[in-house]
Amino acid sequence: MTVYNKVKEMISSNLTQEKIFEGATKVTRAVFIIIVCLIIIKIGEAIIHSFFERQKKSRFGLNEKKAATLQELFKSLLRYAMYFVAAIWIFDIKTVIAVTGVAGVAIGFGAQNLVKDIISGVFILFEDQFAVGDYVVIDGFSGFVEAIGIRVTRLRDFSGDLHIIPNGTITKVTNKTRGNMRALVDVDIAYEEDIDHAIRAIKEVCVECKNEINDIVEGPDVLGVVKLGEFGITIRVVAKTIPLTQAAVEMELRRRIKYKLDKEGIEIPYPRRVILNKEGGC
Amino acid sequence: MTVYNKVKEMISSNLTQEKIFEGATKVTRAVFIIIVCLIIIKIGEAIIHSFFERQKKSRFGLNEKKAATLQELFKSLLRYAMYFVAAIWIFDIKTVIAVTGVAGVAIGFGAQNLVKDIISGVFILFEDQFAVGDYVVIDGFSGFVEAIGIRVTRLRDFSGDLHIIPNGTITKVTNKTRGNMRALVDVDIAYEEDIDHAIRAIKEVCVECKNEINDIVEGPDVLGVVKLGEFGITIRVVAKTIPLTQAAVEMELRRRIKYKLDKEGIEIPYPRRVILNKEGGC
Amino acid sequence: MTVYNKVKEMISSNLTQEKIFEGATKVTRAVFIIIVCLIIIKIGEAIIHSFFERQKKSRFGLNEKKAATLQELFKSLLRYAMYFVAAIWIFDIKTVIAVTGVAGVAIGFGAQNLVKDIISGVFILFEDQFAVGDYVVIDGFSGFVEAIGIRVTRLRDFSGDLHIIPNGTITKVTNKTRGNMRALVDVDIAYEEDIDHAIRAIKEVCVECKNEINDIVEGPDVLGVVKLGEFGITIRVVAKTIPLTQAAVEMELRRRIKYKLDKEGIEIPYPRRVILNKEGGC
Amino acid sequence: MTVYNKVKEMISSNLTQEKIFEGATKVTRAVFIIIVCLIIIKIGEAIIHSFFERQKKSRFGLNEKKAATLQELFKSLLRYAMYFVAAIWIFDIKTVIAVTGVAGVAIGFGAQNLVKDIISGVFILFEDQFAVGDYVVIDGFSGFVEAIGIRVTRLRDFSGDLHIIPNGTITKVTNKTRGNMRALVDVDIAYEEDIDHAIRAIKEVCVECKNEINDIVEGPDVLGVVKLGEFGITIRVVAKTIPLTQAAVEMELRRRIKYKLDKEGIEIPYPRRVILNKEGGC
Amino acid sequence: MTVYNKVKEMISSNLTQEKIFEGATKVTRAVFIIIVCLIIIKIGEAIIHSFFERQKKSRFGLNEKKAATLQELFKSLLRYAMYFVAAIWIFDIKTVIAVTGVAGVAIGFGAQNLVKDIISGVFILFEDQFAVGDYVVIDGFSGFVEAIGIRVTRLRDFSGDLHIIPNGTITKVTNKTRGNMRALVDVDIAYEEDIDHAIRAIKEVCVECKNEINDIVEGPDVLGVVKLGEFGITIRVVAKTIPLTQAAVEMELRRRIKYKLDKEGIEIPYPRRVILNKEGGC
Amino acid sequence: MTVYNKVKEMISSNLTQEKIFEGATKVTRAVFIIIVCLIIIKIGEAIIHSFFERQKKSRFGLNEKKAATLQELFKSLLRYAMYFVAAIWIFDIKTVIAVTGVAGVAIGFGAQNLVKDIISGVFILFEDQFAVGDYVVIDGFSGFVEAIGIRVTRLRDFSGDLHIIPNGTITKVTNKTRGNMRALVDVDIAYEEDIDHAIRAIKEVCVECKNEINDIVEGPDVLGVVKLGEFGITIRVVAKTIPLTQAAVEMELRRRIKYKLDKEGIEIPYPRRVILNKEGGC
Amino acid sequence: MTVYNKVKEMISSNLTQEKIFEGATKVTRAVFIIIVCLIIIKIGEAIIHSFFERQKKSRFGLNEKKAATLQELFKSLLRYAMYFVAAIWIFDIKTVIAVTGVAGVAIGFGAQNLVKDIISGVFILFEDQFAVGDYVVIDGFSGFVEAIGIRVTRLRDFSGDLHIIPNGTITKVTNKTRGNMRALVDVDIAYEEDIDHAIRAIKEVCVECKNEINDIVEGPDVLGVVKLGEFGITIRVVAKTIPLTQAAVEMELRRRIKYKLDKEGIEIPYPRRVILNKEGGC
Repeated sequence: MTVYNKVKEMISSNLTQEKIFEGATKVTRAVFIIIVCLIIIKIGEAIIHSFFERQKKSRFGLNEKKAATLQELFKSLLRYAMYFVAAIWIFDIKTVIAVTGVAGVAIGFGAQNLVKDIISGVFILFEDQFAVGDYVVIDGFSGFVEAIGIRVTRLRDFSGDLHIIPNGTITKVTNKTRGNMRALVDVDIAYEEDIDHAIRAIKEVCVECKNEINDIVEGPDVLGVVKLGEFGITIRVVAKTIPLTQAAVEMELRRRIKYKLDKEGIEIPYPRRVILNKEGGC
Repeated sequence: MTVYNKVKEMISSNLTQEKIFEGATKVTRAVFIIIVCLIIIKIGEAIIHSFFERQKKSRFGLNEKKAATLQELFKSLLRYAMYFVAAIWIFDIKTVIAVTGVAGVAIGFGAQNLVKDIISGVFILFEDQFAVGDYVVIDGFSGFVEAIGIRVTRLRDFSGDLHIIPNGTITKVTNKTRGNMRALVDVDIAYEEDIDHAIRAIKEVCVECKNEINDIVEGPDVLGVVKLGEFGITIRVVAKTIPLTQAAVEMELRRRIKYKLDKEGIEIPYPRRVILNKEGGC
Repeated sequence: MTVYNKVKEMISSNLTQEKIFEGATKVTRAVFIIIVCLIIIKIGEAIIHSFFERQKKSRFGLNEKKAATLQELFKSLLRYAMYFVAAIWIFDIKTVIAVTGVAGVAIGFGAQNLVKDIISGVFILFEDQFAVGDYVVIDGFSGFVEAIGIRVTRLRDFSGDLHIIPNGTITKVTNKTRGNMRALVDVDIAYEEDIDHAIRAIKEVCVECKNEINDIVEGPDVLGVVKLGEFGITIRVVAKTIPLTQAAVEMELRRRIKYKLDKEGIEIPYPRRVILNKEGGC
Repeated sequence: MTVYNKVKEMISSNLTQEKIFEGATKVTRAVFIIIVCLIIIKIGEAIIHSFFERQKKSRFGLNEKKAATLQELFKSLLRYAMYFVAAIWIFDIKTVIAVTGVAGVAIGFGAQNLVKDIISGVFILFEDQFAVGDYVVIDGFSGFVEAIGIRVTRLRDFSGDLHIIPNGTITKVTNKTRGNMRALVDVDIAYEEDIDHAIRAIKEVCVECKNEINDIVEGPDVLGVVKLGEFGITIRVVAKTIPLTQAAVEMELRRRIKYKLDKEGIEIPYPRRVILNKEGGC
Repeated sequence: MTVYNKVKEMISSNLTQEKIFEGATKVTRAVFIIIVCLIIIKIGEAIIHSFFERQKKSRFGLNEKKAATLQELFKSLLRYAMYFVAAIWIFDIKTVIAVTGVAGVAIGFGAQNLVKDIISGVFILFEDQFAVGDYVVIDGFSGFVEAIGIRVTRLRDFSGDLHIIPNGTITKVTNKTRGNMRALVDVDIAYEEDIDHAIRAIKEVCVECKNEINDIVEGPDVLGVVKLGEFGITIRVVAKTIPLTQAAVEMELRRRIKYKLDKEGIEIPYPRRVILNKEGGC
Repeated sequence: MTVYNKVKEMISSNLTQEKIFEGATKVTRAVFIIIVCLIIIKIGEAIIHSFFERQKKSRFGLNEKKAATLQELFKSLLRYAMYFVAAIWIFDIKTVIAVTGVAGVAIGFGAQNLVKDIISGVFILFEDQFAVGDYVVIDGFSGFVEAIGIRVTRLRDFSGDLHIIPNGTITKVTNKTRGNMRALVDVDIAYEEDIDHAIRAIKEVCVECKNEINDIVEGPDVLGVVKLGEFGITIRVVAKTIPLTQAAVEMELRRRIKYKLDKEGIEIPYPRRVILNKEGGC
Repeated sequence: MTVYNKVKEMISSNLTQEKIFEGATKVTRAVFIIIVCLIIIKIGEAIIHSFFERQKKSRFGLNEKKAATLQELFKSLLRYAMYFVAAIWIFDIKTVIAVTGVAGVAIGFGAQNLVKDIISGVFILFEDQFAVGDYVVIDGFSGFVEAIGIRVTRLRDFSGDLHIIPNGTITKVTNKTRGNMRALVDVDIAYEEDIDHAIRAIKEVCVECKNEINDIVEGPDVLGVVKLGEFGITIRVVAKTIPLTQAAVEMELRRRIKYKLDKEGIEIPYPRRVILNKEGGC
């Protein structure tokens, strides 16, 4: 038998008419299933949305942040569940097991990350580590939480960047919206100035700010002399503020202290240098 | 048989009326169980709270810090136990095992972290590494311990940040509230000044502080000349204080030493530079 | 028997005529299969291309970015599928299993990376983490996404560099084209200047820019005094812009603020130094 | 049968009277065991304490450091042994094995760390790497060893910090109390000075110190010119001292060398700069 | 029996005459096989070389880079295949399996790296990540690709260094010869200069360069003011060039801009400092 | 049956008289074994010591360093062997196996480190990577090797620190006492000086040193101009010296070159700055 | 039976006379084997040495570097093989297997490193990554290759340090003796100078060097203006030289360019600063 015939036979044995028909049936069925699943997802998302919207308005409902967190989560959950259902439906379960029998270890390894992400996500929610709308720092990425999904968490940075972080890589979390934050301003004065005079002046600004800035919860107070530096004495002022207003409070404190020190004649020093002129140098 | 019928049949075989009823029953039961568990958690937390409150007031009771630590822990323990009970109750144990049979290795891997966290938590408590209220440094995150849970430890930083750290990632701990802390002040004087004169002056401030500052336990003492630096001689003063007051003590020491040196005419030097003017430069 | 004969016999037993013929048949068949596969790939890519092109023009079609993303993906998918088919065809499945029986563990290990890459790629697409044309930062590499393949993602940097990143190494992604971006300009003024005067001047520039620069979505606004620095006071201006225009907006803002400050007589300060001349130095 | 009945039945089947009684018995027994164990611990610690105290006074006893090390260790050992005994006693061994059968791998993983810590601790003691009272540096944490437990080592830093380090993470240890330590002082002189004159002057200080400072074991000696630096010539002085006195010796050396150089008219130079004035600059 | 006899007997039992002859036979055979393999390698390399050389000249052949890449690869493949064949031939397959039975796990581990290297190499070629002659950056090593072997890739740096990188350690690749590269020149001008004047002058240089430098594909364009720096205003110029000519283009741009600014009287500023002389200092 | 009785019975069943007697016997035996082992260790160490001392004096004996290395090793080996023998003796082998049956995997893991340390130690000795008395750098820790034990290597730093490093963590070793070391001195001269004049002067110092310093093996030679730096021209001088004398040679070279340059009127330059005074500044 | 008897019996049962004799026999035999092996090693090394020496002189022999590499390797191979043979001889193979049966996993782990080292070594030699005498950089350690052993590679640094690197840790290698190396000199000129004048002057030096320095293979050429820096314009000169002479060539180039620029009156600038004096400062 020639090579040509052998090849031809081999090809034809793989492509009889019944097989073609069967394949077409399968494809039609798969497309049908995918469409059904997509419709279910759309409807489900609408239901979840309207449920949580009503919930927010109701008297005994959840607080708004929690509702937003759960809404995003349930949508993500629904989507993944439908993808899974569709996969099982299209390729019957036996095929899946057979495939797994071949590529088992490798796929198991790949699936680990998914499982890790989901478990980590569940812990984040159960322990209320952060909710949608919180400002958090995770592993050097900071931003407002936009969504906690079944697999990833999305943070929106002040710069507009969208950080997408797999839940499984989240270990240590810093939440900046769970309690009052500290506003901290360091002011330098020259060594020639009188420390007590400067502190008195800054204290007057503090009293003024306490009354006039609403975001301040506690303080501001003058802590004292935190450094005898290269070019002057550093005095520290500290206040507690409503979360996320600390930067604004610091800016206003800086502005007012600068004006006060100008009025009192206390200088914020430029770098100084004592010059010793050597006669008859080289 | 057409593809359409095949699909239709397949779908209907999955969705008979009994199955629907059975599903409804299961959902009702699950909801019932969840509500029961939530009620038990609420009641349990109330009991734990009142128990420890009474404990604190009683004569032979635990000290306050230990009580706070245990109260947080037991609440966390109760919550996790009830979650687990509910899961077992809703999905009967066979289902769980069946599911595990499929996703076994992967889930086992996911569970490891939980086990590690719990075991680490137990060691932290048994060895009294830190208690609620202590100020600790863990892996670069510092703060007051707010709660030691079954899985995570929460630290509240001076800045107001809430750090959430899984127990399993805690290895080396630095506890800053177990014994007196050192207050350390470095003062620079110019090379032209007399070292012994400066040390004498600072020693007088030390004697004064020892009497007037209550938070000081030991010292302050002048250690000596720790550096012959670029711009002057560095003299170090050291004291032992009650924990967490060291920063305040340092600030007061700095203020007083500055006034003393001014009075004695000893200058804290600005950076100096000797200038050699070259004739006929380029 | 001499060594020579032994060797000769051994060689000849491996190289009978039938074996040579059989080998030739196999090679011919393999070449035929490879050619067939290459043709299928070419035709397939053409079909995919024309399909997505028509799709873009159609009314109910996908948006353009999504279409480009999917087109690249399907091509990559097709290519890999055909490579796989060819391999199975040429070396019959039994050989593959036999080979695997020998080198099993090692190859399994090698295949893991491929599986990880594919799974990661699927998650990136399902979760819409980024699409072709987005500007992203992945693990220190930044650039416009050129293609998301079945195994690697290609980024084109501003510098023209082409970064090729395996999907499996992509964990944390920062997407810079999902929402408005922040333009940020810091301006320094000397301590002698009046803060409120400077802020007023900059605010006038902001109003002007809001009207004249189309890429600005929100702001620009003067945030306030963000630093009392070594050489002056730092004032910050912030705006929201259409993605990827932030650099251009910042440049225009800088230019206009410089002109305004010149006009108002407010100086952007050069580094300053206060010189104290010491008499009779050394 | 209604859902309600089903649930009710299921609950009641779990909570018959005998079971409640049995549970109560178990709790009582557990409490009893715990109390017994706590008493044994208290008594045991007292015995260990008195044994080692008597040991220290006896003629043939251990040296003091070794005694302190072993005392801390035996207490830690006793405590862990009793915890273990209590656990075995309360939950009979079968339960433990059954539990392990379910959570086996995971718990095994958790236990590894404990085993590693214990084995590492044993090696530290057997090889006498450090003892209670030594000053050591372990992985960036430094301090006096307060206790070497069965699982963790506690270091007390000069700053008062208590570092708690699991034995298993201790690999490379630096012990600063095993042999004489080096005191090292670098002195800068200007390029205009005569090197040999400066070295002669410093050598006179060295002779003086050798006689007057008791903590010095060897030296101090002038090594020579270690740097031709930017602003002058660096001369190094080195001595061997009793451990932990090196800082004090360095401080005294610095003070005396400064006075000597002043007397000899050798200047410790401030940073110098040669200025070349360019005519007709821009 | 004495120890001496025992040893003697033991040795002699291992060294009978037949064994010696058998060993000699084996060695002769091994040498013969090695020589045969070396000859085959030499011939094979010659064939590969001449094949690809003819290919390059032929009309329908591969492009030159691809040909060079494949030629290097096939040679490396041939060499490894022959090594393997020789090993199997000399030590018959049973010995190999027996040896593996003893050292199995260990050798398997060692072989993993080889498999990883080969698989990674295959992916690099299939995905056309880089070809011989491209300039790439791999994990901090940069250079022109000299050869992509079956196990290692060789890069030749500008400095003449030859970097040898195992394929298995190559994950993220940056290819600098796939598309036009950016030439970027930053020019500083003093704050006293007029920004628009400077930009106008630089733009004139750009127009000139566009016409006169052939390697420029796009631009050069003035982007705008990218920094309000410490000593002046930074203006950025950007162009697209043919790969690997960007450095030369940048150098020419720098030279021309310098001349133009000199002609226009716009100064590139030296660092500036404002000096404030304090009367009656210290 | 009451709970009380149950507990009582359970306890008593564990503590019959025979068991107590048996336990006492075992403890006595264990103490006896430990004493025997300690005696053997003491005697063994004495024998090892005297053996190696005699060896050193004998004509055909080992060189001194090797003897010291082996002596330390054999002592460490003896100690570990006796510990192991004692453990097997006290707890009969069956108990050990039984215990291992329970804690098997975990202990196996713990033992790995020990095995790794021993194997690494054996390789260090076999390959003569370093011997007692050598000055080595291992992973950032440097010092003279005091002892190479079966598990750890001890280094004594110049500062007096004792570094204890597990053999298993030693991979890359730098040995600074295997061959002559380089002494390297960099000298700066101003741009105004004549390079050839300076090099001639330094060369004269080199000739002088070659004759007068015994530790120099080769050189010193002037390499040439290694840097056109910010403040001057850097000239490099290099010599080969007997190991560990390079620092002393460098110091002497520096001293002599300084005197020579002074004599020749070549200045080692202080940092220079060209000042351009701007008229009518701001 | 008393405890005393029991112990005595147990000890005696282990130490009968036959056993002692048997032990003595074994020790004698082991010593004999070790001596035999050491002799074989000595003889073998001599044979290897003389073989390669003759090889070098022969006409058709290997080149010198390759011969040195192989000689070192074969010696190392011989030594390890004899150690292994001795071990098998002394402890008969059964004992080894029995021991392995106990400590199996642990030892297997330890052996992995050895296997990895050997395999890596084989690849280094097969691929000719470096040979004895080459100057290479491996993972931050640089030096001339002294020996490539079966387990470690030894590098001799310019400083005289001997780096010992396990082959298994060698992944990325940089070989600095495979092809001509680049000599690179950067020269700064002030902004006031004429660029073209300076480049012309340097080009004249280049022509001169090309003729007079033999180690230069290509160039030197002036590349152009590589930086518009803080204090001046940087011009780059580049040449190709014979390996390892690049440093000497750079030094000579620097010397000649300095003289040329002096002659042409082009200044290498000291750092410059423009001073703006502010009237009536603070």
